[in-house]
Amino acid sequence: MLYTSDSLSQLIEEFSLLPGIGKKSAQRIAMYILKLPNEQVERMAKALVNVKEKMQYCVSCWNFTEQNPCSICSNPKRDRSTICVVEEPSDVIAIEKTNEYKGLYHVLGGSLSPLDGIGPEDLKVNELLTRMNSSVQEIILALNPNIEGEATTIYLTRLLKPLGTKVTRLARGIPIGGDLEFADEATITRALEGRVVV
Amino acid sequence: MLYTSDSLSQLIEEFSLLPGIGKKSAQRIAMYILKLPNEQVERMAKALVNVKEKMQYCVSCWNFTEQNPCSICSNPKRDRSTICVVEEPSDVIAIEKTNEYKGLYHVLGGSLSPLDGIGPEDLKVNELLTRMNSSVQEIILALNPNIEGEATTIYLTRLLKPLGTKVTRLARGIPIGGDLEFADEATITRALEGRVVV
Repeated sequence: MLYTSDSLSQLIEEFSLLPGIGKKSAQRIAMYILKLPNEQVERMAKALVNVKEKMQYCVSCWNFTEQNPCSICSNPKRDRSTICVVEEPSDVIAIEKTNEYKGLYHVLGGSLSPLDGIGPEDLKVNELLTRMNSSVQEIILALNPNIEGEATTIYLTRLLKPLGTKVTRLARGIPIGGDLEFADEATITRALEGRVVV
Repeated sequence: MLYTSDSLSQLIEEFSLLPGIGKKSAQRIAMYILKLPNEQVERMAKALVNVKEKMQYCVSCWNFTEQNPCSICSNPKRDRSTICVVEEPSDVIAIEKTNEYKGLYHVLGGSLSPLDGIGPEDLKVNELLTRMNSSVQEIILALNPNIEGEATTIYLTRLLKPLGTKVTRLARGIPIGGDLEFADEATITRALEGRVVV
Protein backbone atom coordinates (compact mmCIF):
# COMPACT_ATOMS: atom_id res chain seq x y z
CA MET A 1 0.00 0.00 0.00
CA LEU A 2 1.17 3.46 -0.88
CA TYR A 3 -0.10 5.59 1.99
CA THR A 4 -0.29 4.17 5.47
CA SER A 5 -3.49 6.06 6.24
CA ASP A 6 -6.82 6.92 4.68
CA SER A 7 -6.90 10.43 6.11
CA LEU A 8 -3.53 11.14 4.47
CA SER A 9 -4.69 9.84 1.06
CA GLN A 10 -7.84 11.91 1.46
CA LEU A 11 -5.87 15.10 2.14
CA ILE A 12 -3.52 14.46 -0.81
CA GLU A 13 -6.56 13.87 -3.02
CA GLU A 14 -8.18 17.15 -1.94
CA PHE A 15 -5.02 19.17 -2.53
CA SER A 16 -4.35 17.64 -5.93
CA LEU A 17 -7.72 19.02 -7.11
CA LEU A 18 -6.43 22.60 -6.71
CA PRO A 19 -5.07 24.49 -9.73
CA GLY A 20 -1.33 24.17 -10.32
CA ILE A 21 -0.96 21.40 -7.74
CA GLY A 22 -0.18 17.94 -9.08
CA LYS A 23 -0.08 14.65 -7.23
CA LYS A 24 3.55 15.13 -6.19
CA SER A 25 3.10 18.67 -4.84
CA ALA A 26 -0.08 17.56 -3.05
CA GLN A 27 1.89 14.80 -1.34
CA ARG A 28 4.66 17.20 -0.39
CA ILE A 29 2.16 19.67 1.05
CA ALA A 30 0.31 16.94 2.97
CA MET A 31 3.58 15.72 4.49
CA TYR A 32 4.40 19.29 5.47
CA ILE A 33 0.98 19.73 7.06
CA LEU A 34 1.51 16.62 9.19
CA LYS A 35 4.46 18.37 10.79
CA LEU A 36 2.75 21.71 11.37
CA PRO A 37 1.46 22.67 14.83
CA ASN A 38 -2.21 21.78 15.36
CA GLU A 39 -3.23 25.42 15.76
CA GLN A 40 -1.88 26.39 12.35
CA VAL A 41 -3.74 23.56 10.61
CA GLU A 42 -6.96 24.44 12.42
CA ARG A 43 -6.50 28.10 11.48
CA MET A 44 -6.09 27.02 7.85
CA ALA A 45 -9.21 24.81 7.93
CA LYS A 46 -11.14 27.67 9.50
CA ALA A 47 -9.90 30.12 6.85
CA LEU A 48 -11.24 27.78 4.15
CA VAL A 49 -14.72 27.51 5.66
CA ASN A 50 -14.72 31.20 6.61
CA VAL A 51 -14.00 32.49 3.15
CA LYS A 52 -16.88 30.47 1.68
CA GLU A 53 -19.31 31.53 4.40
CA LYS A 54 -18.53 35.24 4.28
CA MET A 55 -17.97 35.75 0.56
CA GLN A 56 -20.67 37.15 -1.67
CA TYR A 57 -20.80 39.13 -4.88
CA CYS A 58 -20.87 42.93 -4.73
CA VAL A 59 -24.32 44.05 -5.98
CA SER A 60 -22.68 46.86 -7.91
CA CYS A 61 -19.41 45.62 -9.45
CA TRP A 62 -19.80 41.81 -9.02
CA ASN A 63 -16.41 41.43 -7.39
CA PHE A 64 -16.08 39.09 -4.41
CA THR A 65 -16.78 40.91 -1.15
CA GLU A 66 -17.62 40.38 2.51
CA GLN A 67 -19.76 43.50 2.77
CA ASN A 68 -22.23 44.93 0.27
CA PRO A 69 -21.44 47.07 -1.64
CA CYS A 70 -17.73 46.15 -1.66
CA SER A 71 -14.99 48.28 -0.14
CA ILE A 72 -14.07 49.75 -3.53
CA CYS A 73 -17.63 50.65 -4.57
CA SER A 74 -18.37 52.14 -1.13
CA ASN A 75 -15.10 54.09 -0.93
CA PRO A 76 -15.95 57.82 -1.31
CA LYS A 77 -12.40 58.53 -2.53
CA ARG A 78 -12.79 56.42 -5.69
CA ASP A 79 -13.52 58.23 -8.93
CA ARG A 80 -17.10 57.32 -9.88
CA SER A 81 -16.76 58.65 -13.45
CA THR A 82 -14.61 55.73 -14.63
CA ILE A 83 -15.46 52.02 -14.71
CA CYS A 84 -12.80 49.43 -15.55
CA VAL A 85 -14.34 46.26 -17.00
CA VAL A 86 -12.45 43.03 -16.21
CA GLU A 87 -13.10 39.32 -16.58
CA GLU A 88 -12.37 38.00 -13.10
CA PRO A 89 -11.93 39.21 -9.49
CA SER A 90 -8.22 38.31 -9.76
CA ASP A 91 -7.91 40.97 -12.49
CA VAL A 92 -9.15 43.58 -10.01
CA ILE A 93 -6.36 42.54 -7.63
CA ALA A 94 -3.78 42.77 -10.46
CA ILE A 95 -4.85 46.33 -11.32
CA GLU A 96 -5.17 47.42 -7.66
CA LYS A 97 -1.56 46.31 -7.14
CA THR A 98 -0.37 49.11 -9.45
CA ASN A 99 -1.86 51.75 -7.13
CA GLU A 100 -2.49 53.77 -10.30
CA TYR A 101 -6.18 53.29 -10.92
CA LYS A 102 -8.62 55.21 -8.73
CA GLY A 103 -11.93 54.48 -10.49
CA LEU A 104 -14.49 51.71 -10.06
CA TYR A 105 -14.59 48.18 -11.51
CA HIS A 106 -17.05 45.87 -13.17
CA VAL A 107 -16.37 42.12 -13.08
CA LEU A 108 -17.97 40.34 -16.05
CA GLY A 109 -17.36 36.85 -14.66
CA GLY A 110 -15.62 35.62 -17.82
CA SER A 111 -15.43 36.45 -21.52
CA LEU A 112 -17.51 35.65 -24.59
CA SER A 113 -16.72 32.19 -25.89
CA PRO A 114 -19.27 30.76 -28.35
CA LEU A 115 -17.35 27.46 -28.50
CA ASP A 116 -17.89 26.98 -24.76
CA GLY A 117 -21.45 28.22 -25.06
CA ILE A 118 -20.74 31.41 -23.12
CA GLY A 119 -22.79 34.30 -24.50
CA PRO A 120 -23.49 37.85 -23.23
CA GLU A 121 -26.37 36.54 -21.06
CA ASP A 122 -23.87 34.42 -19.07
CA LEU A 123 -21.77 37.49 -18.23
CA LYS A 124 -22.69 40.54 -16.16
CA VAL A 125 -23.28 42.63 -19.30
CA ASN A 126 -26.83 43.77 -18.48
CA GLU A 127 -25.61 44.66 -14.99
CA LEU A 128 -22.95 46.87 -16.62
CA LEU A 129 -25.56 48.61 -18.77
CA THR A 130 -27.69 49.44 -15.72
CA ARG A 131 -24.65 51.24 -14.24
CA MET A 132 -24.32 53.50 -17.31
CA ASN A 133 -25.75 56.74 -15.91
CA SER A 134 -24.74 60.31 -16.75
CA SER A 135 -21.95 60.37 -14.15
CA VAL A 136 -20.00 57.63 -15.98
CA GLN A 137 -17.60 59.31 -18.40
CA GLU A 138 -15.21 56.53 -19.36
CA ILE A 139 -15.32 52.75 -19.64
CA ILE A 140 -11.90 51.09 -19.70
CA LEU A 141 -12.02 47.61 -21.24
CA ALA A 142 -9.29 45.59 -19.51
CA LEU A 143 -9.99 42.12 -20.89
CA ASN A 144 -7.41 39.41 -21.42
CA PRO A 145 -5.26 39.63 -24.59
CA ASN A 146 -6.64 36.43 -26.14
CA ILE A 147 -9.33 35.61 -28.73
CA GLU A 148 -12.16 35.53 -26.18
CA GLY A 149 -11.01 38.80 -24.60
CA GLU A 150 -10.76 40.44 -28.03
CA ALA A 151 -14.27 39.27 -28.98
CA THR A 152 -15.65 40.59 -25.68
CA THR A 153 -13.87 43.92 -26.21
CA ILE A 154 -15.38 44.30 -29.69
CA TYR A 155 -18.84 43.28 -28.45
CA LEU A 156 -18.80 45.71 -25.51
CA THR A 157 -17.42 48.56 -27.64
CA ARG A 158 -20.35 48.18 -30.07
CA LEU A 159 -22.76 48.09 -27.18
CA LEU A 160 -21.35 51.01 -25.18
CA LYS A 161 -20.23 53.51 -27.81
CA PRO A 162 -23.80 54.42 -28.97
CA LEU A 163 -24.53 55.44 -25.36
CA GLY A 164 -22.11 58.34 -25.85
CA THR A 165 -19.57 57.23 -23.24
CA LYS A 166 -15.85 57.28 -23.95
CA VAL A 167 -14.70 53.66 -24.36
CA THR A 168 -10.97 52.87 -24.05
CA ARG A 169 -8.85 49.73 -23.83
CA LEU A 170 -5.47 48.91 -22.29
CA ALA A 171 -2.40 49.64 -24.44
CA ARG A 172 -0.70 46.70 -26.14
CA GLY A 173 3.06 46.60 -26.54
CA ILE A 174 6.38 45.28 -25.32
CA PRO A 175 6.07 44.37 -21.62
CA ILE A 176 8.38 46.19 -19.20
CA GLY A 177 11.41 44.02 -18.46
CA GLY A 178 10.66 42.06 -21.61
CA ASP A 179 13.21 41.46 -24.32
CA LEU A 180 12.45 42.74 -27.85
CA GLU A 181 14.26 39.72 -29.28
CA PHE A 182 11.86 37.32 -27.58
CA ALA A 183 8.63 39.24 -28.13
CA ASP A 184 6.21 37.53 -30.55
CA GLU A 185 5.22 39.05 -33.90
CA ALA A 186 1.72 40.00 -32.79
CA THR A 187 3.06 41.93 -29.79
CA ILE A 188 5.69 43.75 -31.87
CA THR A 189 3.06 44.60 -34.51
CA ARG A 190 0.83 46.10 -31.80
CA ALA A 191 3.76 47.98 -30.29
CA LEU A 192 4.59 49.49 -33.72
CA GLU A 193 0.97 50.45 -34.36
CA GLY A 194 0.71 52.08 -30.95
CA ARG A 195 4.07 53.91 -31.12
CA VAL A 196 4.16 57.28 -29.38
CA VAL A 197 6.12 60.48 -30.05
CA VAL A 198 8.93 61.01 -27.53
CA MET B 1 -6.70 48.15 -0.92
CA LEU B 2 -5.54 44.95 -2.55
CA TYR B 3 -8.08 42.39 -1.37
CA THR B 4 -11.66 43.37 -0.77
CA SER B 5 -11.99 41.05 2.20
CA ASP B 6 -10.10 40.00 5.31
CA SER B 7 -11.13 36.36 5.05
CA LEU B 8 -9.70 36.23 1.52
CA SER B 9 -6.37 37.78 2.59
CA GLN B 10 -6.30 35.34 5.50
CA LEU B 11 -6.78 32.33 3.19
CA ILE B 12 -4.12 33.57 0.75
CA GLU B 13 -1.76 34.09 3.68
CA GLU B 14 -2.34 30.54 4.97
CA PHE B 15 -1.79 28.97 1.56
CA SER B 16 1.37 30.95 0.85
CA LEU B 17 2.94 29.35 3.95
CA LEU B 18 2.83 25.92 2.28
CA PRO B 19 5.93 24.56 0.52
CA GLY B 20 6.17 25.34 -3.21
CA ILE B 21 3.29 27.82 -3.07
CA GLY B 22 4.19 31.47 -3.52
CA LYS B 23 2.00 34.53 -3.09
CA LYS B 24 0.74 34.31 -6.69
CA SER B 25 -0.19 30.62 -6.58
CA ALA B 26 -1.83 31.15 -3.19
CA GLN B 27 -3.97 33.90 -4.69
CA ARG B 28 -4.87 31.72 -7.66
CA ILE B 29 -5.84 28.84 -5.37
CA ALA B 30 -7.90 31.10 -3.10
CA MET B 31 -9.78 32.50 -6.09
CA TYR B 32 -10.42 28.96 -7.27
CA ILE B 33 -11.70 27.95 -3.82
CA LEU B 34 -14.18 30.84 -3.84
CA LYS B 35 -15.81 29.25 -6.87
CA LEU B 36 -15.89 25.69 -5.53
CA PRO B 37 -19.10 24.19 -4.14
CA ASN B 38 -19.44 24.60 -0.36
CA GLU B 39 -19.36 20.84 0.23
CA GLN B 40 -15.98 20.44 -1.44
CA VAL B 41 -14.42 23.23 0.63
CA GLU B 42 -15.88 21.79 3.83
CA ARG B 43 -14.56 18.35 2.86
CA MET B 44 -11.12 19.88 2.38
CA ALA B 45 -11.21 21.70 5.72
CA LYS B 46 -12.29 18.48 7.40
CA ALA B 47 -9.48 16.51 5.72
CA LEU B 48 -6.97 19.00 7.15
CA VAL B 49 -8.23 18.70 10.71
CA ASN B 50 -8.76 14.95 10.37
CA VAL B 51 -5.22 14.19 9.28
CA LYS B 52 -3.78 16.03 12.27
CA GLU B 53 -6.18 14.40 14.72
CA LYS B 54 -5.67 10.84 13.53
CA MET B 55 -1.98 10.87 12.67
CA GLN B 56 0.60 9.47 15.05
CA TYR B 57 4.05 7.93 14.75
CA CYS B 58 4.35 4.15 14.42
CA VAL B 59 6.00 2.87 17.62
CA SER B 60 8.13 0.51 15.57
CA CYS B 61 9.23 2.26 12.34
CA TRP B 62 8.39 5.92 13.19
CA ASN B 63 6.46 6.43 9.98
CA PHE B 64 3.20 8.39 10.10
CA THR B 65 0.26 6.10 10.80
CA GLU B 66 -3.37 6.09 11.94
CA GLN B 67 -3.10 2.74 13.73
CA ASN B 68 -0.26 1.42 15.84
CA PRO B 69 1.83 -0.39 14.71
CA CYS B 70 1.44 0.92 11.15
CA SER B 71 -0.04 -1.09 8.27
CA ILE B 72 3.43 -2.01 6.97
CA CYS B 73 4.86 -3.14 10.34
CA SER B 74 1.69 -5.12 11.13
CA ASN B 75 1.46 -6.73 7.68
CA PRO B 76 2.35 -10.46 8.09
CA LYS B 77 3.36 -10.63 4.41
CA ARG B 78 6.27 -8.19 4.83
CA ASP B 79 9.76 -9.64 5.15
CA ARG B 80 10.87 -8.99 8.74
CA SER B 81 14.54 -9.80 8.01
CA THR B 82 15.18 -6.54 6.10
CA ILE B 83 14.88 -2.96 7.36
CA CYS B 84 15.20 -0.05 4.96
CA VAL B 85 16.37 3.12 6.73
CA VAL B 86 15.05 6.39 5.27
CA GLU B 87 15.03 10.04 6.30
CA GLU B 88 11.36 10.97 5.95
CA PRO B 89 7.90 9.36 5.62
CA SER B 90 7.77 10.66 2.02
CA ASP B 91 10.77 8.42 1.24
CA VAL B 92 8.72 5.40 2.35
CA ILE B 93 6.03 6.40 -0.15
CA ALA B 94 8.64 6.80 -2.91
CA ILE B 95 10.00 3.28 -2.30
CA GLU B 96 6.54 1.72 -1.85
CA LYS B 97 5.61 3.11 -5.28
CA THR B 98 8.14 0.78 -6.92
CA ASN B 99 6.28 -2.29 -5.57
CA GLU B 100 9.72 -3.93 -5.40
CA TYR B 101 10.54 -3.77 -1.72
CA LYS B 102 8.81 -6.20 0.63
CA GLY B 103 10.75 -5.59 3.86
CA LEU B 104 10.18 -3.16 6.74
CA TYR B 105 11.21 0.50 7.13
CA HIS B 106 12.75 2.73 9.73
CA VAL B 107 12.16 6.49 9.47
CA LEU B 108 15.01 8.47 11.05
CA GLY B 109 13.17 11.79 10.92
CA GLY B 110 16.02 13.59 9.13
CA SER B 111 19.76 13.27 8.60
CA LEU B 112 22.86 14.23 10.55
CA SER B 113 23.68 17.91 10.08
CA PRO B 114 26.15 19.37 12.58
CA LEU B 115 25.74 22.84 11.05
CA ASP B 116 22.03 22.78 11.87
CA GLY B 117 22.76 21.21 15.25
CA ILE B 118 21.18 17.89 14.33
CA GLY B 119 23.04 15.01 15.95
CA PRO B 120 22.26 11.27 16.32
CA GLU B 121 20.19 11.99 19.46
CA ASP B 122 17.78 14.08 17.36
CA LEU B 123 17.12 11.17 14.99
CA LYS B 124 15.51 7.80 15.70
CA VAL B 125 18.93 6.09 15.85
CA ASN B 126 18.52 4.49 19.29
CA GLU B 127 15.09 3.30 18.23
CA LEU B 128 16.75 1.61 15.23
CA LEU B 129 19.29 -0.10 17.49
CA THR B 130 16.54 -1.54 19.72
CA ARG B 131 15.06 -3.17 16.59
CA MET B 132 18.32 -4.99 15.82
CA ASN B 133 17.44 -8.49 16.98
CA SER B 134 18.61 -11.80 15.53
CA SER B 135 15.84 -11.92 12.92
CA VAL B 136 17.18 -8.79 11.17
CA GLN B 137 19.58 -9.90 8.45
CA GLU B 138 20.00 -6.79 6.32
CA ILE B 139 19.84 -3.04 6.80
CA ILE B 140 19.42 -1.04 3.60
CA LEU B 141 20.54 2.57 4.01
CA ALA B 142 18.38 4.63 1.63
CA LEU B 143 19.38 8.14 2.62
CA ASN B 144 19.38 11.14 0.32
CA PRO B 145 22.38 11.56 -2.04
CA ASN B 146 23.65 14.78 -0.43
CA ILE B 147 26.30 15.64 2.17
CA GLU B 148 23.99 15.09 5.17
CA GLY B 149 22.72 11.79 3.76
CA GLU B 150 26.32 10.65 3.11
CA ALA B 151 27.38 11.56 6.65
CA THR B 152 24.39 9.70 8.08
CA THR B 153 25.16 6.66 5.92
CA ILE B 154 28.78 6.58 7.15
CA TYR B 155 27.71 7.07 10.77
CA LEU B 156 25.08 4.32 10.65
CA THR B 157 27.42 1.90 8.83
CA ARG B 158 30.02 2.28 11.60
CA LEU B 159 27.31 1.77 14.21
CA LEU B 160 25.58 -1.21 12.63
CA LYS B 161 28.40 -3.24 11.06
CA PRO B 162 29.93 -4.33 14.42
CA LEU B 163 26.53 -5.87 15.28
CA GLY B 164 27.15 -8.44 12.54
CA THR B 165 24.26 -7.42 10.30
CA LYS B 166 24.68 -7.00 6.56
CA VAL B 167 24.57 -3.25 5.79
CA THR B 168 23.87 -2.14 2.19
CA ARG B 169 23.11 1.14 0.46
CA LEU B 170 21.23 2.11 -2.71
CA ALA B 171 23.22 1.98 -5.96
CA ARG B 172 24.42 5.27 -7.44
CA GLY B 173 24.49 5.80 -11.18
CA ILE B 174 22.86 7.30 -14.23
CA PRO B 175 19.11 7.69 -13.59
CA ILE B 176 16.76 5.81 -15.93
CA GLY B 177 15.52 8.15 -18.64
CA GLY B 178 18.46 10.43 -17.88
CA ASP B 179 20.86 11.61 -20.54
CA LEU B 180 24.55 10.75 -20.15
CA GLU B 181 25.46 14.08 -21.73
CA PHE B 182 23.67 16.01 -18.98
CA ALA B 183 24.71 13.86 -16.01
CA ASP B 184 27.08 15.62 -13.59
CA GLU B 185 30.66 14.47 -12.99
CA ALA B 186 29.96 13.03 -9.55
CA THR B 187 27.12 10.86 -10.88
CA ILE B 188 29.20 9.61 -13.83
CA THR B 189 32.12 8.86 -11.49
CA ARG B 190 29.80 6.81 -9.26
CA ALA B 191 28.33 5.04 -12.28
CA LEU B 192 31.83 4.10 -13.48
CA GLU B 193 32.86 2.89 -10.03
CA GLY B 194 29.71 0.82 -9.73
CA ARG B 195 29.84 -0.63 -13.27
CA VAL B 196 28.53 -4.18 -13.60
CA VAL B 197 29.42 -7.05 -15.94
CA VAL B 198 26.77 -7.61 -18.59
